Amino acid sequence: MAKELKELTPRSQDYSQWYLDLVLKADLAENSAVRGCMVIKPYGYAIWEKIQRQLDDMFKETGHVNAYFPLFIPKSFLSKEADHVEGFAKECAVVTHYRLKNDPDGKGVIVDPEAKLEEELIIRPTSETIIWNTYRNWIQSYRDLPILVNQWANVVRWEMRTRLFLRTAEFLWQEGHTAHATKAEAEEESQKMLEVYGEFAEKYMAMPVVRGVKSASERFAGAIDTYTIEALMQDGKALQSGTSHFLGQNFAKAFDVKFTDKEGKQDYVWATSWGVSTRLIGALIMAHSDDNGLVLPPKLAPFQVVIVPIYRSEEQLAQINEKVAGIVSALKNLGISVKYDNSDNKKPGWKFSEYELKGVPIRLAMGGRDLENNTIEVARRDTLTKETVSCDNLDVYIKNLLNDIQENIYKKALDFRTASTINVDSYDEFKEKIEEGGFLMAHWDGTPETEEKIKNETKATIRCIPLEGDKTPGKCMVTGNPSTQRVVFARAY
Amino acid sequence: MAKELKELTPRSQDYSQWYLDLVLKADLAENSAVRGCMVIKPYGYAIWEKIQRQLDDMFKETGHVNAYFPLFIPKSFLSKEADHVEGFAKECAVVTHYRLKNDPDGKGVIVDPEAKLEEELIIRPTSETIIWNTYRNWIQSYRDLPILVNQWANVVRWEMRTRLFLRTAEFLWQEGHTAHATKAEAEEESQKMLEVYGEFAEKYMAMPVVRGVKSASERFAGAIDTYTIEALMQDGKALQSGTSHFLGQNFAKAFDVKFTDKEGKQDYVWATSWGVSTRLIGALIMAHSDDNGLVLPPKLAPFQVVIVPIYRSEEQLAQINEKVAGIVSALKNLGISVKYDNSDNKKPGWKFSEYELKGVPIRLAMGGRDLENNTIEVARRDTLTKETVSCDNLDVYIKNLLNDIQENIYKKALDFRTASTINVDSYDEFKEKIEEGGFLMAHWDGTPETEEKIKNETKATIRCIPLEGDKTPGKCMVTGNPSTQRVVFARAY
Repeated sequence: MAKELKELTPRSQDYSQWYLDLVLKADLAENSAVRGCMVIKPYGYAIWEKIQRQLDDMFKETGHVNAYFPLFIPKSFLSKEADHVEGFAKECAVVTHYRLKNDPDGKGVIVDPEAKLEEELIIRPTSETIIWNTYRNWIQSYRDLPILVNQWANVVRWEMRTRLFLRTAEFLWQEGHTAHATKAEAEEESQKMLEVYGEFAEKYMAMPVVRGVKSASERFAGAIDTYTIEALMQDGKALQSGTSHFLGQNFAKAFDVKFTDKEGKQDYVWATSWGVSTRLIGALIMAHSDDNGLVLPPKLAPFQVVIVPIYRSEEQLAQINEKVAGIVSALKNLGISVKYDNSDNKKPGWKFSEYELKGVPIRLAMGGRDLENNTIEVARRDTLTKETVSCDNLDVYIKNLLNDIQENIYKKALDFRTASTINVDSYDEFKEKIEEGGFLMAHWDGTPETEEKIKNETKATIRCIPLEGDKTPGKCMVTGNPSTQRVVFARAY
Repeated sequence: MAKELKELTPRSQDYSQWYLDLVLKADLAENSAVRGCMVIKPYGYAIWEKIQRQLDDMFKETGHVNAYFPLFIPKSFLSKEADHVEGFAKECAVVTHYRLKNDPDGKGVIVDPEAKLEEELIIRPTSETIIWNTYRNWIQSYRDLPILVNQWANVVRWEMRTRLFLRTAEFLWQEGHTAHATKAEAEEESQKMLEVYGEFAEKYMAMPVVRGVKSASERFAGAIDTYTIEALMQDGKALQSGTSHFLGQNFAKAFDVKFTDKEGKQDYVWATSWGVSTRLIGALIMAHSDDNGLVLPPKLAPFQVVIVPIYRSEEQLAQINEKVAGIVSALKNLGISVKYDNSDNKKPGWKFSEYELKGVPIRLAMGGRDLENNTIEVARRDTLTKETVSCDNLDVYIKNLLNDIQENIYKKALDFRTASTINVDSYDEFKEKIEEGGFLMAHWDGTPETEEKIKNETKATIRCIPLEGDKTPGKCMVTGNPSTQRVVFARAY
């Protein structure tokens, strides 16, 4: 029964069900009683904490500080930037009252009609409006710039079709909001933060990403340019993993935020915003995991090593406990997070499949023979291979192995993406190949009409216009009109 | 003008205005465009990050893990625990709709009447109800217990009279929610977490607190017992700084959360909850700061040391820069956070008063003579004293000095509290002494009626029934009826 509880629908059979099984059975998250809102369970939240800590360090290294702005946005603020309200009005939670009262009919509590707000409040779907309304008072002169602020917060977008981590009504994220004296500086900032995201995705999540710029129709509501990192999932679908927006002076104009430059001239302030969310956990799962469970890159695993004792008597357990204590302490000294699971209410086999399901990168097992031989069994989660090694210098061995695993997971994902990225030159070929998934590199004439036609006919969208790689011009696969470079098409989450 | 900008209303003249001046001028927080909601500015948020990091470590050391539950609570959940709904219904933000649409009259956007929720959602004022509804599915047997979960989150209580940090409509906090198999274990947990708060307040915030239990009328809505830490502010008013609740089986019964014990018997689960909030920043300010600005304990200061160069030429600045680089690196090696402010657009005098206002514990200043003599000027924020010391072994000197400052700030607050805590034996004396502020230790007959009378006549409340100290019985100062021990009375924030 324990085994069944941990069994996942195979990916080949039903990828969506496999994902859902995994999220639930690995105790990452579950749906709550509130439509579209998830409960992030401790193991899932521990991954988020790892993501947060690392990104926060990277933001601070690039000169940013954290702050906190209100959850609520006055309804009128949303309307001040035309594209912005168009993008968010259709999916926002609205607070209209501030009190409940006892139902005179005795049926619990009802909304008190006398406690109606003068102006409705929107739960922030993103914070540009409330933040730029605040920045107006913070900025007078070029000396007040740049402002490099980030916020860790919850946001709400009332999505109709939700999926754990990937698309939920409430999610956790960070949103950077910066203010600059020049256009060049703001553009540089938005690209710098894209690169922070790219580096994080590749070095920490072990997930290769394409860096690019969105087409006009896929831009953030209110942005001049939206930069994106796009990852490829194992089912051949793309997942937008982080975006960084050059907002121009749009929000400064909407909220009248001007500054005096060195020459005494007044101008509107230049802006960027950038964010990643708990969606990254969904990306992490879908990029690496297999039919046995999670595969976590060591740099983001809540614990990197688990040790399981295999014993026949209390006396033997005591000997193993003693031996393992030394190993645990040596590993911790090298900064490796380790859990020793000598709980006696579960059998080793149960523990093995449990930690496999939870994606712990390295499992160590020590039994009677190991005690005699000064050895330990080392199992890698990524390759599902085992070997028996000496306990001498085990700490250094494990440290190197964790690095190998991190690299191997990245390499595997990169090889998959390379194999799944193809150049396509005709629309007929495109329609055929899109059914197999992957990134299709094709020429496009740059018009929203062609983009829309392709989307309607194939469900594929332009993930981005890549910033790097092949920049050879060509002809649009649909219209034959000139194209400046190939762009990335894919079906996407 | 710079000086004026930093000047605070003296505490002796208007304590409330001094507090507000300080919060604004030290760039800690400000009111937002949303009634009762604050913007926590980067310097204020940096203090919160220090508080968070330390508390989070302490929670994890005591076996807790973090998780995240929805922002929204279905209205019907609130009603399930009778006292709970009574306590929170009057001040909650209610979401009734999930979409805006363009106003047909062209006046921006309006709430779409067709997008009305079937059941209204409350923005969490605290999460017992949504969490216990979730725990029902997590708990079947004693093997699933205890659950030791904490959440860092924002909550909303629609307070009518707000004050930055101390009482705001939205605030940030942590809320622990634990589930246990026995009453004794839950009681022990609630007291253990009170002690974590007590230790944090005293060792990190340098703020002495009285640990005690609340009288029935001051209990958390839904608790059997509320434990509290109470601090004394410089104006003689008390500030409740953290609470830990033994909830009995109230929420388990309301949400039908049962477990099977070792003998196969079913019983309801026992619960605790405990929380501290951004209110702690208000406590930190009011416990230690003075008419010149913030006084921060080194353990929670965003940076502990600031270094200011005093120079007459670019050449001299270059020499100071070089000398200071060595000092900065030596301090960082000892884990001391340090900022070197050699910005050339502000004068040293401006910087001195700025960092005084911001409560940086130690200010170092280096000028031409210091360069010659291998010395540096050391100014303590807590005592406002200065001395010139040798640069040899400066790192160790500073490290010890930071410890001295931490202890001195605590001692000063403790001495103040000791001097402001008096035994009072008659109600007449009580009415006289309460005007002077402080903790009044008096006998009380244990009835809510007497408590209410005292509150109405003197504005003093029972802050707590202390867990430690004098337990001698006596007679109630108001009714003459028996009292088991003296309790702490004060006017409070």
